[in-house]
Amino acid sequence: MAYLYDRIASDIEQQIAQSVLRVGDKLPSLRLICERYGVSQSTALQAYYQLEARSLIESRPRSGYFVHRSPKRQLPLPEISAPGQAASGELHGIISRVYRDMGRDGAVPLSLGAPALALLPVAKLNKGLVKATRSLAGSGLAYEQVQGNANLRRQVARFYGGNAEDLVVTAGCMEALSLSLMAVTQRGDTIAVESPVYFGILQLAQSLGLAVMELPTHPQTGVEIDALKKALNKVNAVLLVSNFNNPLGSLMPDAHKKEVVRLIQHYGVPLIEDDLYGEVYFGAERPRSCRSFDDSGLVLWCSSVSKTLAPGYRVGWVAPGKFRDEVLRLKLYHSIAGTTITQEVIAGFLETGRYAHHLRSLRHTLQANALRYTRAIADYFPEGTKISRPQGGFMLWVELAAKTDSVALYERAMRQGISIAPGNMFSLQDQYRNCMRLSYGMPWNSTIEDALKRLGKLMI
Amino acid sequence: MAYLYDRIASDIEQQIAQSVLRVGDKLPSLRLICERYGVSQSTALQAYYQLEARSLIESRPRSGYFVHRSPKRQLPLPEISAPGQAASGELHGIISRVYRDMGRDGAVPLSLGAPALALLPVAKLNKGLVKATRSLAGSGLAYEQVQGNANLRRQVARFYGGNAEDLVVTAGCMEALSLSLMAVTQRGDTIAVESPVYFGILQLAQSLGLAVMELPTHPQTGVEIDALKKALNKVNAVLLVSNFNNPLGSLMPDAHKKEVVRLIQHYGVPLIEDDLYGEVYFGAERPRSCRSFDDSGLVLWCSSVSKTLAPGYRVGWVAPGKFRDEVLRLKLYHSIAGTTITQEVIAGFLETGRYAHHLRSLRHTLQANALRYTRAIADYFPEGTKISRPQGGFMLWVELAAKTDSVALYERAMRQGISIAPGNMFSLQDQYRNCMRLSYGMPWNSTIEDALKRLGKLMI
Repeated sequence: MAYLYDRIASDIEQQIAQSVLRVGDKLPSLRLICERYGVSQSTALQAYYQLEARSLIESRPRSGYFVHRSPKRQLPLPEISAPGQAASGELHGIISRVYRDMGRDGAVPLSLGAPALALLPVAKLNKGLVKATRSLAGSGLAYEQVQGNANLRRQVARFYGGNAEDLVVTAGCMEALSLSLMAVTQRGDTIAVESPVYFGILQLAQSLGLAVMELPTHPQTGVEIDALKKALNKVNAVLLVSNFNNPLGSLMPDAHKKEVVRLIQHYGVPLIEDDLYGEVYFGAERPRSCRSFDDSGLVLWCSSVSKTLAPGYRVGWVAPGKFRDEVLRLKLYHSIAGTTITQEVIAGFLETGRYAHHLRSLRHTLQANALRYTRAIADYFPEGTKISRPQGGFMLWVELAAKTDSVALYERAMRQGISIAPGNMFSLQDQYRNCMRLSYGMPWNSTIEDALKRLGKLMI
Repeated sequence: MAYLYDRIASDIEQQIAQSVLRVGDKLPSLRLICERYGVSQSTALQAYYQLEARSLIESRPRSGYFVHRSPKRQLPLPEISAPGQAASGELHGIISRVYRDMGRDGAVPLSLGAPALALLPVAKLNKGLVKATRSLAGSGLAYEQVQGNANLRRQVARFYGGNAEDLVVTAGCMEALSLSLMAVTQRGDTIAVESPVYFGILQLAQSLGLAVMELPTHPQTGVEIDALKKALNKVNAVLLVSNFNNPLGSLMPDAHKKEVVRLIQHYGVPLIEDDLYGEVYFGAERPRSCRSFDDSGLVLWCSSVSKTLAPGYRVGWVAPGKFRDEVLRLKLYHSIAGTTITQEVIAGFLETGRYAHHLRSLRHTLQANALRYTRAIADYFPEGTKISRPQGGFMLWVELAAKTDSVALYERAMRQGISIAPGNMFSLQDQYRNCMRLSYGMPWNSTIEDALKRLGKLMI
């Protein structure tokens, strides 16, 4: 069933396609749209949001909406990655430098791993905090249950399906991954991951004494199924970011998810599914998790609100399948329980529908950002640049000419107050030197555009 | 220099000693004391608090203060413990049952491991929360520094001495212990601990694949130095609760602390000092830490506010000495950072002097509790009972007649709605079956007194 705003948007799209409206033309005002279609202001706005997200129109502050110029060119996708054998090599020292430098005053944090504060509902969460001091016996001073706030688990189960009893609340998704890895592996084991892969996963694996097998990964469909299949009798666990992998933005199609679950069941290998970006989808609906195809209990599904709502609250969770008791034990032994009050705030945010509401606007902003950043990169980066086409999340993976050294580029960019994440942070092997990850989690403005322009110039 | 209230208290003590005031006599009203000594109401109250804490007088609701009857008898101390060889035995299943049952509605939680909510400054902390949403950029939604809130580290350094740069904030003391153990040991290593020892330490050691050597421990002066000395060339790390050990309440004298530090330096073995009860002292001043005698960086000093202020906030810290970088790395890898806002609230509580103020009243209450609980146990428990004489903290260690089975007692008590912690929870070996730990963290009232009375009857 098409919504009214879909109809309005497609009318205007047709006018652009037929050159009734041309590049630079001003679109009808929202008031006019309301009158013409007999719709509310918010429906009219929704139609324009849609067109904006698809990069067909752009809003200019205090002037209205205009038909957008197309980017100079469409950049090609990076190839499927081709990492080498399993390695437990040293982590690149660059990681800690990027971390340290990112917070430098005035730096444009294109290396950021979280949404900018401006995109988060600060005031509403503050109200939730005050409410939580009233709803919690002892205002959140008492120890929370080891398994986590019962209301939060109920709300997460309602939001995602499943059972509150099967969830364990954690200090963000990172603790969920840490407890899951501790539950299913031992020092000396090997895990399989995508390549490139979020460096935090490499650091965690190293700290637990695990070797890492990096698998060939498609920039749009995620891990290569054949490669995974060949790896499965050599590894003790698999860890995949199924939806909008960081840094590629890849999204595993349902058929791949189904096949991955079939394979891990066949080989009896646990799958830790890191689904922390799943809510930030640009398509029609939230992508499914691998867990939703599993009936064996071998999938440990991890997520959080750190990438969508409140990084500093440290609220995440894991549905550990048949490893629930072990994960629960580890949670108790290593930290007793999570912070009480922030769990209650998030529970309330889910319960009242505020989270769903916030996500709608966050997705819109990030989708528009993805297109704006991509266009600027197409405009300003040199010939030979390749770029991912994320269908969600907030990361772009950029591949530069083979000779480019992104660590040297990082140094030059930092001197100009621009922080990027060099590609070799995302592997234990010597690869992705000519790549980098750029976040589009900051609101688009002229500072960002200028930073991308200057970054492009540094590459020539 | 003696305070005015000291003088008043000692006047009255003398009158009791000389039988000017006799058991059951009513003491002068506070108003009379104010007039007689020309002091304020709060000074008069302070004098009576002191006498009450020393069990010389008791307050009766709405009647005033009375000279207290002495306990029927003074119970003897338990012997120095005599555990067997190092063991990596199974943890007693009783632990999880005690945990589960403790929260049962209406149960009297004598097994509690934290102060009752009634003893905590709930309203003031709630105000601090609101203030923190204003003082923090982004109201605490942003990731905190991996090392922890800079202001909190500054305040902790000011409160305890040392340097803010040397501290790492953790999710309570338990995460401090977990990160410390991960930093200084490897799977298969052996650590030395006191005996009896807090079961959480045994669980943590087991989950990290460590064997545990339990050392003979004196109920008042803590670990036996000779035993530790003999152990030091067989272990990879030592973990001691130096001040008011849980469950014994023992306090290592300064000379012992100095000697322990000398020994671990000589053998080059790291000492993890769990100092989470140090603020709850009943003597004239806060006992020193082992760390304060160390100049080698081999002591990892761990503490928190979970046992004094806000268990559910999950705010603790470690000063990891020369293992700082490794602990910092582990914190990042396993959970990125702690909860932002609760750290800011605790920082403010320290900064404004509210923490010091709160601790004064908490100490007074707990010291009075310790005496009241001890007296009730002397009155109601059978012949042959021995009991610790804690100089701080909020635990009593009770040794019953040798034939007593405290697990069976636990079952019988739970059927009467009384939760205790059986002694064999506190060792990996088969010992302390005739012992139990009782917490005096709940405000004294007739329900508690009745529970102790009924508990005593169950033993006969």
